[in-house]
Amino acid sequence: MVTWNNLDTLASWKELEAIEKVNLAEVMSGENGAERVKKYSVPMAEGLAYNYAAKSVDDTVLAGLAKLAGEAQLSEKFAALYNGEMINTGEKRLVLHQLTRGQLGDAVIADGVDKRAFYAEQQQKIAEFANKVHAGEITNEAGEKFTAVVQIGIGGSDLGPRAMYLALENWAKKNDTFKMEAHFISNVDPDDAAAVLNGIDVAHALFVLVSKSGTTLETLTNESFVKDALKNAGLDASRHMVAVTSETSPLAKSDDYLAAFFMDDYIGGRYSSTSAVGGAVLSLAFGPEVFAQFLEGAAKADETAKNPDALQNPAMLDALIGVYERNILGYQCTAVLPYSQALSRFPAHLQQLDMESNGKSVNRYGEPVSYVTGPVIFGEPGTNGQHSFYQLLHQGTDIVPLQFIGFRNNQCGRDVLIQDSTSQQKLCANVAAQIVAFACGKEDENLNKKFEGGRPSSIIIGDQLTPGSLGALLSHFENKVMFQGFLWNLNSFDQEGVQLGKVLAKRVLAHETDGALKVYSDLLNI
Amino acid sequence: MVTWNNLDTLASWKELEAIEKVNLAEVMSGENGAERVKKYSVPMAEGLAYNYAAKSVDDTVLAGLAKLAGEAQLSEKFAALYNGEMINTGEKRLVLHQLTRGQLGDAVIADGVDKRAFYAEQQQKIAEFANKVHAGEITNEAGEKFTAVVQIGIGGSDLGPRAMYLALENWAKKNDTFKMEAHFISNVDPDDAAAVLNGIDVAHALFVLVSKSGTTLETLTNESFVKDALKNAGLDASRHMVAVTSETSPLAKSDDYLAAFFMDDYIGGRYSSTSAVGGAVLSLAFGPEVFAQFLEGAAKADETAKNPDALQNPAMLDALIGVYERNILGYQCTAVLPYSQALSRFPAHLQQLDMESNGKSVNRYGEPVSYVTGPVIFGEPGTNGQHSFYQLLHQGTDIVPLQFIGFRNNQCGRDVLIQDSTSQQKLCANVAAQIVAFACGKEDENLNKKFEGGRPSSIIIGDQLTPGSLGALLSHFENKVMFQGFLWNLNSFDQEGVQLGKVLAKRVLAHETDGALKVYSDLLNI
Repeated sequence: MVTWNNLDTLASWKELEAIEKVNLAEVMSGENGAERVKKYSVPMAEGLAYNYAAKSVDDTVLAGLAKLAGEAQLSEKFAALYNGEMINTGEKRLVLHQLTRGQLGDAVIADGVDKRAFYAEQQQKIAEFANKVHAGEITNEAGEKFTAVVQIGIGGSDLGPRAMYLALENWAKKNDTFKMEAHFISNVDPDDAAAVLNGIDVAHALFVLVSKSGTTLETLTNESFVKDALKNAGLDASRHMVAVTSETSPLAKSDDYLAAFFMDDYIGGRYSSTSAVGGAVLSLAFGPEVFAQFLEGAAKADETAKNPDALQNPAMLDALIGVYERNILGYQCTAVLPYSQALSRFPAHLQQLDMESNGKSVNRYGEPVSYVTGPVIFGEPGTNGQHSFYQLLHQGTDIVPLQFIGFRNNQCGRDVLIQDSTSQQKLCANVAAQIVAFACGKEDENLNKKFEGGRPSSIIIGDQLTPGSLGALLSHFENKVMFQGFLWNLNSFDQEGVQLGKVLAKRVLAHETDGALKVYSDLLNI
Repeated sequence: MVTWNNLDTLASWKELEAIEKVNLAEVMSGENGAERVKKYSVPMAEGLAYNYAAKSVDDTVLAGLAKLAGEAQLSEKFAALYNGEMINTGEKRLVLHQLTRGQLGDAVIADGVDKRAFYAEQQQKIAEFANKVHAGEITNEAGEKFTAVVQIGIGGSDLGPRAMYLALENWAKKNDTFKMEAHFISNVDPDDAAAVLNGIDVAHALFVLVSKSGTTLETLTNESFVKDALKNAGLDASRHMVAVTSETSPLAKSDDYLAAFFMDDYIGGRYSSTSAVGGAVLSLAFGPEVFAQFLEGAAKADETAKNPDALQNPAMLDALIGVYERNILGYQCTAVLPYSQALSRFPAHLQQLDMESNGKSVNRYGEPVSYVTGPVIFGEPGTNGQHSFYQLLHQGTDIVPLQFIGFRNNQCGRDVLIQDSTSQQKLCANVAAQIVAFACGKEDENLNKKFEGGRPSSIIIGDQLTPGSLGALLSHFENKVMFQGFLWNLNSFDQEGVQLGKVLAKRVLAHETDGALKVYSDLLNI
């Protein structure tokens, strides 16, 4: 039986606050620093490792964090979640995204079915559909093969799948599993759909309409936009569209779609990349086997997240250190910095995952909390970011904790030797250098050239970004965010903060406004 | 004669701190709110307007800010800058990016030439070159027209030009000025160059190599990568490349390039979009006339930034309100939220512009400042962001000031009517709704559904995103950042914070490391 308490009511939290702070620049210097880098590393799934040597922790702080994990019952809460307790109390829903990739505990029966079987069945249906598209058994009305897939969705139906597609596009091309280009239409700005449609051959395009409820305004609007374009090209829209939705949505049994694949209310949008929401587009783009490998990587990482020993559980440890930085060290932001161009949109996905899950001021009982919660997340790939915002990270007046990601090998296998090193070596040398520069800093008599150091970072290191390691990476962050929600005693699985804007926008469109909203509407010619 | 003082030494600053804070939710309600939206708006160049009704200011605060602008000599400092004083004291350089688009004051003579004439001459040389490429007078070695342009550059040679290209791509296609696709290679990750090269027809591609010093490691590495690809395709690299660099760089007079266009040390990378750095790629992609319109828009906005009346000077007012939010209200971040898919990478450009300019802890004399400086900047286009991180913005425990941008009309002119409104109307209705939702909030007995409000935002509203309005927008933010640097008494034009990482990366590549850096290098197989 788990009990849900606010972070600041826990005895271990008060103890943690009293522990002496670590002087990061000092402990990361010399041989002690070298020892830390060797020691402060936890293996993750798929050959990844979470190295937290450059975080502001030491054995005492770590022991305090492990104690906190125990008192906060992080493992027990995770078990409650994957065994099917109603963790999303606000919306009265189970939280089952981990079940889309594996069975972590008891069978979960809901809506009269075994949910693991349900998700696996959807994956299978998608695989069969994708194989038929690739084999030319499902074609356009002229009997020609589809050459592109276009996802129509927004938020979780866009950011995660798009980031995963970009992450694996070049890997798939290199490994001969690339099947078709994917494109994405998300914004209600009509220029988004217009530009995508201008850039593709609609006669050979298959559209994947993604909306759990079947009522998302942006998505339905863009569906109409696309249907108009298909009609204007003399094409039968129903031969060019599939739906990903819930079984109870209006899209589920419509003749407007070639096929429908299902998710359900137990999969939050931002956690849906491993469900049919990511499954359809990724299986069509790369083949179902690649999508299956991605799920396997995520499933393995979910297994490591079950470890009750916080210091051997990378997602839990990452979560604990993050909360320590946020609530005890007082840092407001976290930068996500993958040294991998393929992960160019991974920070944008984590931005949603983290900020929409834990950007909240009330606990799971609807009571205000008296501590800060989810940080602002931002980031760009390195080395690009080094030439952009790293100035502030190194010498700005606020400290921003950093989450680096790096791989020993690139995906495309093409490289060039300049000044005795390859580009891949330069890339890796830069991330190693940055970690030490941020942690240790540098003295200089000219204060403009001085680096204070003491700026904490962690790095996840892997061999290569593959479907498996990508799945493990995604799962790591999902589980990190989940554990942080447990620590802050939040419901990380609803998003009431997006409602008011929707209500007011409807009012504007119905011309039922007054006061400031009326004047803004007039200024924008609505 | 201007005097450079720290912000907290100014009498008007101390007065400002003592002024009563505004209750934003209250003042934005009812008819008072409507009046604010009408009144708190300043015209900008190119038909844009800066509306700050939803900022936490009132007439008293505004009077205090105007007084601060006077005491801080913002106008006089801008005049010193554009009249050619050495404002970048750290690097002992003039700061002349505004001169790339117009003459704001006295003739500036440096390096023995009139700099306005120099920049105009480069623009003219680029225009002639681009016209010849478009006319098929400059071709590949087979006498065929170039069909794509690929910029090789990083940081300011990438983010600004890329954001501007994306901002105008669909406009140019719609207005029949689109000449050729542009692509960008920036990251030292070899997969970046490999993916771009895989996606284009190198035989018909023209590469623009951009490096002011001619020594940027990433850029030279990617140049070699591209030259290898050209060689492997049996092509003569020197027939496919132009350089944008300084006259003193090793690239300036090399036979390796079809042509060289020049910038100089007085144009910082992040301020270089209106110089040859943006000029070459944008003129090739859209034609020199479009680039000229972009410069005209920027020049007009620079003129408005000269207005000594802070309340009639949108860039100065934006800067003052930002400093008020940062240093008096204590907000650490600013989100940039354009309701325009074309501005998808504009926030990434502003992230560099702002964070690299003002993310500093020492004043222009190299003395530590005792107040916080540049904020963390992040953002994504709306409505996408609404389905991502807005949850935290509405209900998170920290307040994040917001900078909206919206246009009455889209660029492509294609739209669809769903539920009695167009997509464009839905887009605009959403931004109007968000401003009011953030400012006013909403009461609810269920605290999970309650919105506290009091979350400040401004909006820049325009008719359409065109070359002219884009130039005005870019200039607005450049000048805002400049004025904030003046207020914080920083040198906004150097970036010493990027140096340490470079030095340590070189050491890693030379295998001259010990301690933590050595272990990280080993872990990454360097």
